[in-house]
Amino acid sequence: MAIQLIGYPISTCTLRVVATLKELGVSYEITPPSDFSELKTPEYLATKHPFGKIPVLIDDGFKIYESRAIIRYLVNKYQGKNNSTVLIPSDVQKAGLVEQFISVEISYYDEAVHKLVAQEVFTKFHGKTPDPEIVKEARVEIGKVLDVYEKLLEGKDYLTGEFSLADISHYPYTYYSFSSGHGDLWEKRPNVARWWKNISEREIWKGIVAELNQK
Amino acid sequence: MAIQLIGYPISTCTLRVVATLKELGVSYEITPPSDFSELKTPEYLATKHPFGKIPVLIDDGFKIYESRAIIRYLVNKYQGKNNSTVLIPSDVQKAGLVEQFISVEISYYDEAVHKLVAQEVFTKFHGKTPDPEIVKEARVEIGKVLDVYEKLLEGKDYLTGEFSLADISHYPYTYYSFSSGHGDLWEKRPNVARWWKNISEREIWKGIVAELNQK
Repeated sequence: MAIQLIGYPISTCTLRVVATLKELGVSYEITPPSDFSELKTPEYLATKHPFGKIPVLIDDGFKIYESRAIIRYLVNKYQGKNNSTVLIPSDVQKAGLVEQFISVEISYYDEAVHKLVAQEVFTKFHGKTPDPEIVKEARVEIGKVLDVYEKLLEGKDYLTGEFSLADISHYPYTYYSFSSGHGDLWEKRPNVARWWKNISEREIWKGIVAELNQK
Repeated sequence: MAIQLIGYPISTCTLRVVATLKELGVSYEITPPSDFSELKTPEYLATKHPFGKIPVLIDDGFKIYESRAIIRYLVNKYQGKNNSTVLIPSDVQKAGLVEQFISVEISYYDEAVHKLVAQEVFTKFHGKTPDPEIVKEARVEIGKVLDVYEKLLEGKDYLTGEFSLADISHYPYTYYSFSSGHGDLWEKRPNVARWWKNISEREIWKGIVAELNQK
């Protein structure tokens, strides 16, 4: 039975799961909810996600929600099954660093980048106008975070040294920052720019972006 | 060489690591920074935590920061070594659910509870007066989250059914909510109350609280 992924292909958290599924070579079917209001129905809350969110993954009857929990589950179950891509190494120290950078992403990176993307992408998506003051503030905050990343990425091609689940977790919000015209913040920092080039030019991510642009 | 934990025993994120170390039966030495300003020095940023936070763990020369990354590392390395306590089961589905509830804690629970604790504990700690309006708002938000937990915990003693790292991750902010007089929000919901009783009456947590109260 194919894996069922409940979510929207354009959603940031769904994209995180899609990238992981494709990197692991795992086939899946995506099932978009009819609209956002479906996520708040008693049926969805009771049977899919108790806080009314996407994505939710159902794997042969086993249900799991929250994108970063889903991607870890997929790695634990499928890594090494269909290809040789390693997203969490078996070495405990290397695995620890993957977790460290996933936490850095949640605690510092996404907090700043989400503020920008919420204005430039989500607000526009809902037919409203972004607030230029919030965009300006967000750019300053992102700049400070990326200054730290610039040091963390010194001499490294990826966050932990090797491509990992931590890099994947950074894809969605970074992609939307570039697509909404703010890529300069990444491009003007050489180490950050090299890192983004390394991960965004992977064939799998390029394929995902090509699909997004067809819609 | 004993594990070195850089942090303050009263800090929420440090407490999360302390509870995990003690549950796994791993000995450690805690090294508190001289004061909060130390966390922002170039030396601390360059050698300990690039975003100037605690805790940081150093295990025989290997350094890792971010509390939830540290606790996963500790489980991966030490689970089963010194006792039979299981915090992340080897079964991939059960492990997936531990991750799901850690993510629920970060995304919904802590967001609401942090707002309360920031006012009632951190603001007071810095000699300021909590804002009663923010406290009131936070209580409403926590109530909504706990209403969902009440359903999630129906017929269960712990979040995933068995005591796990997900329960540990909920300790610090819940403890400070109770200690600042807001335990009623938990106690009036029978399933949530039973869950908190189950985890807060573990001998290890009681020992940690006794130590906190001596300081």
